[in-house]
Amino acid sequence: MKALILTLLFLLQCAFNLSLHFHPLDPLTPQEINKTSFIVKKSHLGNLIDLTFHYFDLEEPNKTHVLQWLSSKKPPQPPPRRSLVVVRAGGQTHELIIDLTTSKIVSSRLYTGHGFPSFTFIELFKASKLPLTYPPFKKSILDRSLNISEVSCVPFTVGWYGETITRREVKASCFYRDGSVNVFTRPIEGITVTIDVDLMRVVKYSDRFRKPLPDSKDNDFRTKHKPFPFSCNVSDTGFKILGNKIKWANWKFHVGFSARAGVTISTASVLDTRTKRFRRVMYRGHVSETFVPYMDPTYEWYFRTFMDIGEFGFGRSAVNLQPLIDCPQNAAFFDGHVAGPDGTAQRMTNVMCVFEKNGYGASFRHTEINVPGQVITSGEADISLVVRMVATLGNYDYIVDWEFKKNGAIRVGVDLTGVLEVKATSYTSNEQITENVYGTLVAKNTIAVNHDHYMTYYLDLDIDGNRNSLVKAKLKTVRVTDVHNKTSTPRKSYWTVVKETAKTEADGRVRLGSEPVELLIVNPQKMTQIGNTVGYRLIPEHLPVTSLLTDDDYPEIRASYTKYPVWVTAYNRSERWAGGFYSDRSRGDDGLAVWSNRNREIENKDIVMWYNVGFHHIPYQEDFPVMLTLHGGFTLRPSNFFDNDPLIGYTRP
Amino acid sequence: MKALILTLLFLLQCAFNLSLHFHPLDPLTPQEINKTSFIVKKSHLGNLIDLTFHYFDLEEPNKTHVLQWLSSKKPPQPPPRRSLVVVRAGGQTHELIIDLTTSKIVSSRLYTGHGFPSFTFIELFKASKLPLTYPPFKKSILDRSLNISEVSCVPFTVGWYGETITRREVKASCFYRDGSVNVFTRPIEGITVTIDVDLMRVVKYSDRFRKPLPDSKDNDFRTKHKPFPFSCNVSDTGFKILGNKIKWANWKFHVGFSARAGVTISTASVLDTRTKRFRRVMYRGHVSETFVPYMDPTYEWYFRTFMDIGEFGFGRSAVNLQPLIDCPQNAAFFDGHVAGPDGTAQRMTNVMCVFEKNGYGASFRHTEINVPGQVITSGEADISLVVRMVATLGNYDYIVDWEFKKNGAIRVGVDLTGVLEVKATSYTSNEQITENVYGTLVAKNTIAVNHDHYMTYYLDLDIDGNRNSLVKAKLKTVRVTDVHNKTSTPRKSYWTVVKETAKTEADGRVRLGSEPVELLIVNPQKMTQIGNTVGYRLIPEHLPVTSLLTDDDYPEIRASYTKYPVWVTAYNRSERWAGGFYSDRSRGDDGLAVWSNRNREIENKDIVMWYNVGFHHIPYQEDFPVMLTLHGGFTLRPSNFFDNDPLIGYTRP
Repeated sequence: MKALILTLLFLLQCAFNLSLHFHPLDPLTPQEINKTSFIVKKSHLGNLIDLTFHYFDLEEPNKTHVLQWLSSKKPPQPPPRRSLVVVRAGGQTHELIIDLTTSKIVSSRLYTGHGFPSFTFIELFKASKLPLTYPPFKKSILDRSLNISEVSCVPFTVGWYGETITRREVKASCFYRDGSVNVFTRPIEGITVTIDVDLMRVVKYSDRFRKPLPDSKDNDFRTKHKPFPFSCNVSDTGFKILGNKIKWANWKFHVGFSARAGVTISTASVLDTRTKRFRRVMYRGHVSETFVPYMDPTYEWYFRTFMDIGEFGFGRSAVNLQPLIDCPQNAAFFDGHVAGPDGTAQRMTNVMCVFEKNGYGASFRHTEINVPGQVITSGEADISLVVRMVATLGNYDYIVDWEFKKNGAIRVGVDLTGVLEVKATSYTSNEQITENVYGTLVAKNTIAVNHDHYMTYYLDLDIDGNRNSLVKAKLKTVRVTDVHNKTSTPRKSYWTVVKETAKTEADGRVRLGSEPVELLIVNPQKMTQIGNTVGYRLIPEHLPVTSLLTDDDYPEIRASYTKYPVWVTAYNRSERWAGGFYSDRSRGDDGLAVWSNRNREIENKDIVMWYNVGFHHIPYQEDFPVMLTLHGGFTLRPSNFFDNDPLIGYTRP
Repeated sequence: MKALILTLLFLLQCAFNLSLHFHPLDPLTPQEINKTSFIVKKSHLGNLIDLTFHYFDLEEPNKTHVLQWLSSKKPPQPPPRRSLVVVRAGGQTHELIIDLTTSKIVSSRLYTGHGFPSFTFIELFKASKLPLTYPPFKKSILDRSLNISEVSCVPFTVGWYGETITRREVKASCFYRDGSVNVFTRPIEGITVTIDVDLMRVVKYSDRFRKPLPDSKDNDFRTKHKPFPFSCNVSDTGFKILGNKIKWANWKFHVGFSARAGVTISTASVLDTRTKRFRRVMYRGHVSETFVPYMDPTYEWYFRTFMDIGEFGFGRSAVNLQPLIDCPQNAAFFDGHVAGPDGTAQRMTNVMCVFEKNGYGASFRHTEINVPGQVITSGEADISLVVRMVATLGNYDYIVDWEFKKNGAIRVGVDLTGVLEVKATSYTSNEQITENVYGTLVAKNTIAVNHDHYMTYYLDLDIDGNRNSLVKAKLKTVRVTDVHNKTSTPRKSYWTVVKETAKTEADGRVRLGSEPVELLIVNPQKMTQIGNTVGYRLIPEHLPVTSLLTDDDYPEIRASYTKYPVWVTAYNRSERWAGGFYSDRSRGDDGLAVWSNRNREIENKDIVMWYNVGFHHIPYQEDFPVMLTLHGGFTLRPSNFFDNDPLIGYTRP
């Protein structure tokens, strides 16, 4: 009897903890992942021997339902837990939605459109090994007097170049380690191995020319010393973690992790110290797609136009974060869960970290000397909370930050580093080069190829509620002409602000930098006490970068959303992946540009902002053998959202 | 005898220390300041009762001589120590150069051009008190039922608006404290008090209208809690200080402080780990001018177009830095010395701080998974050294950083904060406003006026030597048309880099953001081992901002250098102040735009880069009662300067 009571108490406690920690946008738990794949395997698809799981995530719940559940004191039923999976079986792509409460498949659909889901790690691993046993490749290696056991091949996605029929293919690029750990710096140039991944067979092979193998002498990227210890005692508020929910200072938000997006920030709200209420800022935010086109049109290189999020997955490429390199000593580390190709849950250790950061500046400061006999100084140190992940996609490393500030701002930062993609060349000095080599000679026999990076952010802002508008606050020069002014002032000009509210998605495409403008997402139904429309504005941290490829070029057709730095679209639950859901070999018939072209109304609607953090990367020698971090990012900052400086009313909780 | 030997030893040691610490660009010592003014007071000008010191600095030594002295092992004579002072005496402006070794006036010149030297603090203080005893002003205050003892007036510079004869004038704006410490938020609108500073007399007075006094209820900018302790133990290399010279990690440089520029960085060199030699990067860098035009053309506001550096002085406005607000706990603090209006040395306590900063990111990182059986991660925490000052000019606070990075970069940051300049209005809600109010209603009865900020940086870069060139690396789209390519690739376009070297100063004016371009300062005579031209490139941290005033408007004529974000000019020892040496009431006949219009050759010459960190500031309610920091800045980063990633060869000294 006593045992029974204890058991009941235990179960009650579990239920209590669940309800306390639970959030409808929580990522799928390992149990939910395994349950989903069990159900799929029991279905008609389970009979197919090649059943493989390629996409595995929580089916996006109905937003209204989520918000209702979160805001009600006496909760109704939470949104149903459903998983969305994409499997390959019988050579075809199937989309399934599984209800985890009823254990039923509620939707099953054969996908017959263009493009394919992302590759599984096992597929990529097998494809990387395939050339090593392929006789023509072995002959090429032998002909070059190289040792096959020192060769590493890396499968690259191939894009789409107008083919009417596409298959799931990769092209393997191979590198010669020969004891060196910096694999990507030693390309065996001239060889292209095309692999059909469904057949897992080499379907095309070419060995067109040889180039000298770049030296391994100076390519080691390992530092010779231990990381410098750097300990900070942040005696600020500290942060609280309840399941996937984080509370810190005046912020509360939810952190998710998925194989495709990596870190996802949801339902971020900021405290209004006047009303003592939390106010909504962002429903969801995550990296939506990355696009990395190389600027070398030759046969061995033209196809390198990666869309990493859709082709590989940012979460699946997340690294085990290293203290003192990736996160400071005061960081808390978090695991993530993804599904393997067989549908079983896999734990990824320390893929996210959360820490308080000292910006070493002041969020505000002032010294006032105009009060007789006094010198008054006040200010507030810029301390923020950072959620970080690092994704390594082959040679490249992306450090992705979501930073929450007490001033109400959300800062998004991305640092690019890793090893450049280089091509072997016979040149050993820049003075020998007279042709276009499509990059920079960064070491002897080593050209680092010019390329771009676009990190496209999905920002479902809900400023103080669902219905928002995009306002362009344009700065216009005014000539002083009116007679009254002319008589009372010798000034001839000034600028003024002309606000334009975007009506449709066509107005939501903004070419930043061409004219002076501030972009605000406002809530036209909400005002401050003195009648200003509440909003947040976008502050970029770098020059706007848009694609320089021609509109008719195939990579540009697939990633035409890189033509503008900013897009605003109508909210649609299914529109989250800027390059389309099936990025691999996509043809540009799904994705941000297509949705925006519908030209839906975006005034006083639930809207989504998309921001491209873009980089044109001309390599320099300092980027070899490992690249100096390049920084990009932007800030979303309250702008007439609060009634005054939010730091003034702020008191330490 | 023993005492004599000890004394000799002591003197020897002093001499040794002096030679060890001495740098030819050291700021004037208190002794040198006092010696200079003693010599001036002994001269014919000393007889004039109104002799006042307005500018006081080391006369810029000959650059060749400085470099020779620094580079020689067996030093020749260092450049002579000379002071340059500008005094007002007998109602006129005199420029004097004093040789401190010979104690002689080597040059004395009456200045008869346009414009005046900066105001002294005593002048500004007296001008601020003058209205309080001026009967018409006292009547205006009484008529408003205000108490004169609660009024603070602040003298503002008046610019130039086409007058043929100008005098040294300010216009006082007055504020009602009434127990409140945030003086600038309570303007007594409608009154303009014009003061002749030489006569120290009100020369024009107008009281045109009344507006309600903004409330003081919510204007306190003081935080209610103590600063959050935030201690960091940076166990990095630490920095060494020898006089004004600082050595840290792979950097060595000189820090100066002057009344006009504030912090000046000189002779900054970075260690090349391959050759174990220091290589030159920057001869001198400092803020050259600030320009802050307000966008309200009405009689009471049109003239507010401040050029703070020339009119007031950044060093003279430097604040006593507060630990935990302005600088972290691990900072070292430094004093500066300026001359008072009577020519005596004044110590300014803790006006500069130096600290190691954790950027909380990685300078580089990589995880390599393509070596069979291994996962290799390496990286380096982004730790840098910051030299900081804060200048408070009336309502505004500027946080100015020079940051040295181990990757060889120099990052310049400026944070703008403080209290906005507001005007009183009868409006209490934005909904009442139908006219152009030239700003944002940030509180009841309070309009924060639209304005710009331009921080103009003087950057005398000497990349690996004196003779440098400006290279524009332009990114140009190329259509794939050649037959060979067409058959071997389906790719239709890519971008390539077309480098243009600027020939003359006209080519040195660059409108960033209008086309994709990287700007490099290169040394055309120096190459890396593999033949790339050594250089540094400019990386902006914000959208480029240029002036929107019309070219014929008076403030724009004075600050026409704000039309381009980047200028490159020929080095000339006397060309350091972008707005001209005599900024107060200047007419645009001296300064950067005038020098650049000479169109001197700048290819393979000693050249200077000028960079405008610009802000268009549309105020928001969050900027009241104290402004949330706005950040601007840029990085100068090695680009084919080193033979490879400088962090790889770096070992902790």
